Amino acid sequence: MKVLDEVLERVTPDTNERKLLEEAYNAVRSRARHALQQRDIDPSVELVGSAARDTWLSGDRDIDVFLLLPKSLDREEFRDIGLDVGKEVFPEGTVEYAEHPYVSGTENGYDVDIVPCYDLESTSELRSAVDRTPFHNEYVKNTDLDGDEVRLLKAFMRGAGIYGSDLRTRGFSGYLTELLVLYYGGFQEVVEASADWDPPVEIDIKNHGVGGFDDPLIVVDPTDPERNVAAVVSRDSFARFVDWSREWLKEPRVSLFFPDEREPLGQKEFREILDDRDTTLLCVRFDSPDLVDDQLFPQLKKTETGLSEELERRGFDIIRSTVWAGSDCVLLVELNIGQQSRIEKHWGPPVHVREHAEKFKEKYTGTDVVGPYIEDGKYVVERRRKHPKARGFVESDDFLEIGMGKHVEKKVKEGYDVLCNEECEKLLTDFGSEFRDYFDP
Amino acid sequence: MKVLDEVLERVTPDTNERKLLEEAYNAVRSRARHALQQRDIDPSVELVGSAARDTWLSGDRDIDVFLLLPKSLDREEFRDIGLDVGKEVFPEGTVEYAEHPYVSGTENGYDVDIVPCYDLESTSELRSAVDRTPFHNEYVKNTDLDGDEVRLLKAFMRGAGIYGSDLRTRGFSGYLTELLVLYYGGFQEVVEASADWDPPVEIDIKNHGVGGFDDPLIVVDPTDPERNVAAVVSRDSFARFVDWSREWLKEPRVSLFFPDEREPLGQKEFREILDDRDTTLLCVRFDSPDLVDDQLFPQLKKTETGLSEELERRGFDIIRSTVWAGSDCVLLVELNIGQQSRIEKHWGPPVHVREHAEKFKEKYTGTDVVGPYIEDGKYVVERRRKHPKARGFVESDDFLEIGMGKHVEKKVKEGYDVLCNEECEKLLTDFGSEFRDYFDP
Repeated sequence: MKVLDEVLERVTPDTNERKLLEEAYNAVRSRARHALQQRDIDPSVELVGSAARDTWLSGDRDIDVFLLLPKSLDREEFRDIGLDVGKEVFPEGTVEYAEHPYVSGTENGYDVDIVPCYDLESTSELRSAVDRTPFHNEYVKNTDLDGDEVRLLKAFMRGAGIYGSDLRTRGFSGYLTELLVLYYGGFQEVVEASADWDPPVEIDIKNHGVGGFDDPLIVVDPTDPERNVAAVVSRDSFARFVDWSREWLKEPRVSLFFPDEREPLGQKEFREILDDRDTTLLCVRFDSPDLVDDQLFPQLKKTETGLSEELERRGFDIIRSTVWAGSDCVLLVELNIGQQSRIEKHWGPPVHVREHAEKFKEKYTGTDVVGPYIEDGKYVVERRRKHPKARGFVESDDFLEIGMGKHVEKKVKEGYDVLCNEECEKLLTDFGSEFRDYFDP
Repeated sequence: MKVLDEVLERVTPDTNERKLLEEAYNAVRSRARHALQQRDIDPSVELVGSAARDTWLSGDRDIDVFLLLPKSLDREEFRDIGLDVGKEVFPEGTVEYAEHPYVSGTENGYDVDIVPCYDLESTSELRSAVDRTPFHNEYVKNTDLDGDEVRLLKAFMRGAGIYGSDLRTRGFSGYLTELLVLYYGGFQEVVEASADWDPPVEIDIKNHGVGGFDDPLIVVDPTDPERNVAAVVSRDSFARFVDWSREWLKEPRVSLFFPDEREPLGQKEFREILDDRDTTLLCVRFDSPDLVDDQLFPQLKKTETGLSEELERRGFDIIRSTVWAGSDCVLLVELNIGQQSRIEKHWGPPVHVREHAEKFKEKYTGTDVVGPYIEDGKYVVERRRKHPKARGFVESDDFLEIGMGKHVEKKVKEGYDVLCNEECEKLLTDFGSEFRDYFDP
């Protein structure tokens, strides 16, 4: 198909790019082997991921290099050797933290992660998630997977904004796209199938048996029956892929792979949109904690949920909410109305439940509430609302009581700004693109 | 008890009052018998209700006189004779409508209803609800019911605002108070029992068996197993009685029988309350249809429910609503906020339900809505709210589409006023007491 040819033209690495990657890997491999040998360790170094399987997209500049260490090493030795070897390969490298720490450096323009794992015979011996990677590598390399088909699917998902299994995206990992292509046969076949996906969708290539997973998409890992490769795919990423696939089937077009770049939202347009919607935009800004996205985003989402739920509990009607992170973090909540009346109805027990009912009545008799009166067989009082304005709530100490991620809570307690409606313009400099996507999703 | 003695002093008719009632009844009875005899009908005339059973409250000025007509009469004869005799007794009387028409007149300062019914041997032959009354009369007169105990209970319920089985009050009928006193033994015993009532409460004096009733209070009619004498008692009247009984047990006092009269709400206080609550008070005023309360109130309640439900469907948060009737009718709705933003979220189907999802997406693509975007696996659009203001809705033709009672709808369509917040002051002249009760229930 002409459209797909055009896409492939843009996403397939050319000879020169392949050569650069190979050179970078060889250099790293050689230094790593040397470092291992110096420590009397079998120099087992492996290129993994899309670079190893020829499924990477042109322009990708990430290489994952694994050190397969003997399983005789204890935790501490394992950790020290991994870091020492990494530092020897990249004296200027930085230490990153996932399940274990590892060293990250650059070689020939490529970002290279040097990741230690145990060299195992079977996935039943797994000690951590990264130990699976060599098995994935081996499994895929032993199939006749067509790299071009995977590249099409990856680029398609990237166009939809759902490529990546990080916890910000909660989309499809590279390995998952490979398994989908293996299972269905190719890009077009995956897309045709997914247009009709009805969750839960179960894919079990090796017939391990599917059980115990509660996810919209379940792809049993061929190398490990206990694992759903698609566990991180959120309900909305799943739906987005279904939606995007139908768009492709309706009208195949390059723009689904490469959507037009959009202008960040400017001040004039921002004001027009606010005027037009007449909602209340409430933003909380604070310094970003020093965390990788995979740790930061779950904490931000938890905080977003905590804020939304508390505002709803207090009677506010929320249109949407979201979180953004850059050098600052932003919690955004858009409310139907930012201010309520000064009273709220507070329901008591049914009058016939004597003990509770009498206590409730006694508690409120002689106070400044309206009531207790009876409605639907229950006592009710109308009491003063503590925070008639949503802004008032967020500016009060009560805000600090909501459920927040640990590091987020610490940063928020160090200080935060509350911005309302046109005050949020201040955020356009850093988050103009996010505002664009928010208002025109 | 001293308190009860004081109450009895005020509610027991004295000799003179008894004499006046007897004279009035005798005069009516005599004219009614004469009129029946002239029509060759057995002159069976019966005083029924509290006057017949010596359970009426001093100051009551209502007498019910029943004409027991032969069951051989067909509907039309029955109806004509009832009205003709009534008109002969009260040439100036008016025709009222319940299940059948009847004549109402005044005698000696008493309001007398002349009600025709069939003279039956058993309640299994009932042709209409009024045919039961002579059976009730006979049943109660054959017991040793203590009129004073009934008077205490009636006055107590009157104090609570729940005495009366009309459809405005939806409280306790006179016959029901008599049965409660018979069952429990006296005023104090009824009140002690009701303080612990847990609905459904079943009382079956003649052990007919209780079944098929779905009411908080079920008192099987001793004269008719098919009937719940308390069917009209609303959940809130039930709860109010429970509440009032506990108040009595906590502190016996005359004021529960004779609450202080309250001043109608004045303009100054009204404004203070509005300012303080900061809610939106929305009133719809229209001419009262020419209906008895028992027909008018169900229609008004239906209209109130229709309006509240429609406003809630449109996203408004209602604190309370009520209806009042005098020469005008008033629907009152108090809203947390009277105005919402200009957009509303409209949820579509889950994305995976392909046919519906595609239709939804197609319907909204290219229109001026925001979206469709995906949230919680579903398509969502944000579309323009037709009526951001509750007032705007009530002033629009959309208001006429809500479920209304038939005669109410007719009057509303002839014309209505919408009053908001301080504009509602205009209603204080006619409904000052109702406003007082509303704001201080």
